[in-house]
Amino acid sequence: MLKLSKNPSLIRLKTRGESICPISKTIDVFEVVVEYIPRGAALALEEFRQMVDSYRGREILHEELAVDLMERIKTAVNPPYVKVVLKSYYIGVEIEVVAESGGVQPLYI
Amino acid sequence: MLKLSKNPSLIRLKTRGESICPISKTIDVFEVVVEYIPRGAALALEEFRQMVDSYRGREILHEELAVDLMERIKTAVNPPYVKVVLKSYYIGVEIEVVAESGGVQPLYI
Amino acid sequence: MLKLSKNPSLIRLKTRGESICPISKTIDVFEVVVEYIPRGAALALEEFRQMVDSYRGREILHEELAVDLMERIKTAVNPPYVKVVLKSYYIGVEIEVVAESGGVQPLYI
Amino acid sequence: MLKLSKNPSLIRLKTRGESICPISKTIDVFEVVVEYIPRGAALALEEFRQMVDSYRGREILHEELAVDLMERIKTAVNPPYVKVVLKSYYIGVEIEVVAESGGVQPLYI
Amino acid sequence: MLKLSKNPSLIRLKTRGESICPISKTIDVFEVVVEYIPRGAALALEEFRQMVDSYRGREILHEELAVDLMERIKTAVNPPYVKVVLKSYYIGVEIEVVAESGGVQPLYI
Amino acid sequence: MLKLSKNPSLIRLKTRGESICPISKTIDVFEVVVEYIPRGAALALEEFRQMVDSYRGREILHEELAVDLMERIKTAVNPPYVKVVLKSYYIGVEIEVVAESGGVQPLYI
Amino acid sequence: MLKLSKNPSLIRLKTRGESICPISKTIDVFEVVVEYIPRGAALALEEFRQMVDSYRGREILHEELAVDLMERIKTAVNPPYVKVVLKSYYIGVEIEVVAESGGVQPLYI
Amino acid sequence: MLKLSKNPSLIRLKTRGESICPISKTIDVFEVVVEYIPRGAALALEEFRQMVDSYRGREILHEELAVDLMERIKTAVNPPYVKVVLKSYYIGVEIEVVAESGGVQPLYI
Amino acid sequence: MLKLSKNPSLIRLKTRGESICPISKTIDVFEVVVEYIPRGAALALEEFRQMVDSYRGREILHEELAVDLMERIKTAVNPPYVKVVLKSYYIGVEIEVVAESGGVQPLYI
Amino acid sequence: MLKLSKNPSLIRLKTRGESICPISKTIDVFEVVVEYIPRGAALALEEFRQMVDSYRGREILHEELAVDLMERIKTAVNPPYVKVVLKSYYIGVEIEVVAESGGVQPLYI
Repeated sequence: MLKLSKNPSLIRLKTRGESICPISKTIDVFEVVVEYIPRGAALALEEFRQMVDSYRGREILHEELAVDLMERIKTAVNPPYVKVVLKSYYIGVEIEVVAESGGVQPLYI
Repeated sequence: MLKLSKNPSLIRLKTRGESICPISKTIDVFEVVVEYIPRGAALALEEFRQMVDSYRGREILHEELAVDLMERIKTAVNPPYVKVVLKSYYIGVEIEVVAESGGVQPLYI
Repeated sequence: MLKLSKNPSLIRLKTRGESICPISKTIDVFEVVVEYIPRGAALALEEFRQMVDSYRGREILHEELAVDLMERIKTAVNPPYVKVVLKSYYIGVEIEVVAESGGVQPLYI
Repeated sequence: MLKLSKNPSLIRLKTRGESICPISKTIDVFEVVVEYIPRGAALALEEFRQMVDSYRGREILHEELAVDLMERIKTAVNPPYVKVVLKSYYIGVEIEVVAESGGVQPLYI
Repeated sequence: MLKLSKNPSLIRLKTRGESICPISKTIDVFEVVVEYIPRGAALALEEFRQMVDSYRGREILHEELAVDLMERIKTAVNPPYVKVVLKSYYIGVEIEVVAESGGVQPLYI
Repeated sequence: MLKLSKNPSLIRLKTRGESICPISKTIDVFEVVVEYIPRGAALALEEFRQMVDSYRGREILHEELAVDLMERIKTAVNPPYVKVVLKSYYIGVEIEVVAESGGVQPLYI
Repeated sequence: MLKLSKNPSLIRLKTRGESICPISKTIDVFEVVVEYIPRGAALALEEFRQMVDSYRGREILHEELAVDLMERIKTAVNPPYVKVVLKSYYIGVEIEVVAESGGVQPLYI
Repeated sequence: MLKLSKNPSLIRLKTRGESICPISKTIDVFEVVVEYIPRGAALALEEFRQMVDSYRGREILHEELAVDLMERIKTAVNPPYVKVVLKSYYIGVEIEVVAESGGVQPLYI
Repeated sequence: MLKLSKNPSLIRLKTRGESICPISKTIDVFEVVVEYIPRGAALALEEFRQMVDSYRGREILHEELAVDLMERIKTAVNPPYVKVVLKSYYIGVEIEVVAESGGVQPLYI
Repeated sequence: MLKLSKNPSLIRLKTRGESICPISKTIDVFEVVVEYIPRGAALALEEFRQMVDSYRGREILHEELAVDLMERIKTAVNPPYVKVVLKSYYIGVEIEVVAESGGVQPLYI
């Protein structure tokens, strides 16, 4: 966690990770995008990377992983707004899961 | 159908399928995108794939297929919001059909 | 015109056509996108194609062609909302003409 | 200026032009996009091209050129809404200038 | 700073720069986009480039750099609205920081 | 046919057309690219467009249309080298047919 | 199989299909591109589609499927040259298998 | 013309220009790419731009313009190899003309 | 290692991995593409993934990693031809390393 | 300079830099791609970055900069083959300069 002396309006992070599908027991590869409004603190990139890497080899549905990651970010830097978007691909289907928490969704595009 | 202990804000699924055109009797190939807000349950990907594959060899207008698929998803996981977008191509025309059900349309892009 | 037993929320069609410029008398090639909300009836694709092909060899400004096509679609399937977007290119200038009719413009993107 | 018997909802034009930078005296190459809502009259493309070509060899800031072009279009076809977007590139910086006039900005994307 | 006789609605600038990460002491390369509404004055491009180049070799978090640059632009041309978006890449993570100041966020896209 | 006083090394033309499929009797929409080495004469664009438009409403396999168009171009401007590439799409399959005639295939990319 | 009165130089076909992985027993979705030089006969598109669809639900390695499809095309239309390229995706790895048969590989790009 | 103390292996230039079509008398807008191997001298960019701008308002076929420009570059810097590629668009047809001169065509891609 | 009853002409694999830079001790993220001509045996995808994952947390230059991976693939399936292309990004520089072994480089594109 | 215990077949580097134009005295921003075949030694990325940064604020033609950078790389790591490609943009013209040295140009694409 980084203390911020100046508060940006929004921070967006994007990377890749993997987990184990609890149904088929195969490796699920995913891309994840996190957006949050910081309030005095930001996630260090090493810290964020460790969070994403912690799902490696762990059985969890992507639908639940997105919410789980969102909650850990809330615990770490307590942002007034956070959104997690997780994308993967399985048997010809592209899946995208969105988890979001906080008052007003910002209008940035 | 998957029971969810944590509720994401939105789930988006994308794949390809085919049906028979009731007018020209030729094979219609389509791409379909589904978006829904889950309430305690999610579509398993195998379940979604079977829904889409069930139109294979069946005579149905794309305009009606989109609404039909939307209704089956409502029956399966009863989401407060669901949208189905179906795209295809015929005699040089690209077609896109949108079917949607539920209270407020989400603003995710 | 196709009778629909199930009503989609929106239908989008895209194709190419041509007409004659009434000023320079040269062939104008264009791309056209139509969006409408169906109410019990949809345009058959063959019917839409004939509408677009009917401008072939005919002298008409693109600014007026877009409105003319919009009005013919209103006559054919009487939709509560319809939008026509027509794009072309001439002497290094790209042109886009939008014609629109009906209550509320939908927010689909 | 073209008299229109049918009024489209929006017209968009895009081309390229050049001017002289009053500070460095070098040639500024730009891309320009114009959007306007017509009221009974449209810009002929030859007319629009002449407007853009008139800045060739003339010293003017891009920040002012965008407003100047907007005002000439207002004089020519008196639209209830007009927007001019001008893009260029210099010493590794991309610049975009927007000039706009009229009641409500349309929501077309 | 350039005095403007005509006021555009919006100016957008985009370039690249670099700084030193205060944690890992490595060089951070970034892309930056600035948007502001001018009020009688615009940033000269040479002036903007010097601002961005001033972070070269200086230890500063990207989260703080975005806010710092925004404040310097406010000091230079006093715009009613300004937004700074800064993007970089580190250990497989893409980061985007947004800093923004002023009344109403404009709807330009 | 245009008489050329100066001989280019290669001319490439690209457009769209349509024909009728002799098997399914539906409209086949295609894109066609022609490359030829001119010898004192070039195809006028109006002439090329008429060639392509002549397949409208005519029953012919795309595999044969490509060869037929190649032979008509050979008759018109007698080039030492000519290649015709024709692309279309049917029941989910993209098809590309290449017809070629003449000594050495040029190495231009 | 279509008898051809005129022989093109090359035919290229592209579509999607699926099979079962003999190791993990999951559905493998693939994209396939076929290139061949016809000698008096071409594959009808319906015939090609049936070949690709015949792997649906069948256990076969993609490495062997590519060679198998190539051999069936050789049996059907006996081309002097044929190449099959098959692409798929599994546990974060993109795989591409090439099978090829015949004298000289053509230089078309 | 710039004297070079060090000889690069290849120089490539790309810009846009316009001329008048001698048949339809309309403005032809084109994109042009020049490649040459320098021998002790290079085209200054201002010099190249003047060459391209000199076709403005002049009646000349694109097929001949490409060869004409190639010959002027040969006169100016006498390169052992030069190629000119000119692209434009008319009545729905994209045209590309290649003019080339000199011993061996280089293999750079 | 998979025994193959049918030999494809070429197999191409693409994925992402990470290692530790022996100079700066930071995490290096890379993309890797492998191409090989199989002779009776293919790499199982799980086997290939384990090879790539084995560099995680290990200090090795990317220049050497590419050659190391190539040698392990040669040991595993003994192909007559193999090429490894590794791409990464550091302090604003994109790096690409190619390692290759075997008689003739294939001409597939 | 990095000593290599294993020799890759090819290394490719890509970044951005700037210099001063000796004619107009303005800042020239460029993108540069270097390809070389290493023989026991590789350029460290910090070393390459310093080479590119050394042109900052220095007056030199891009045509000569490309050859100059190529010669410095030859001095540093003595590769049997090296190619430098430098791209920039000025008064609406894109320029690309290629400098190359060594026996056989590699066929990698």
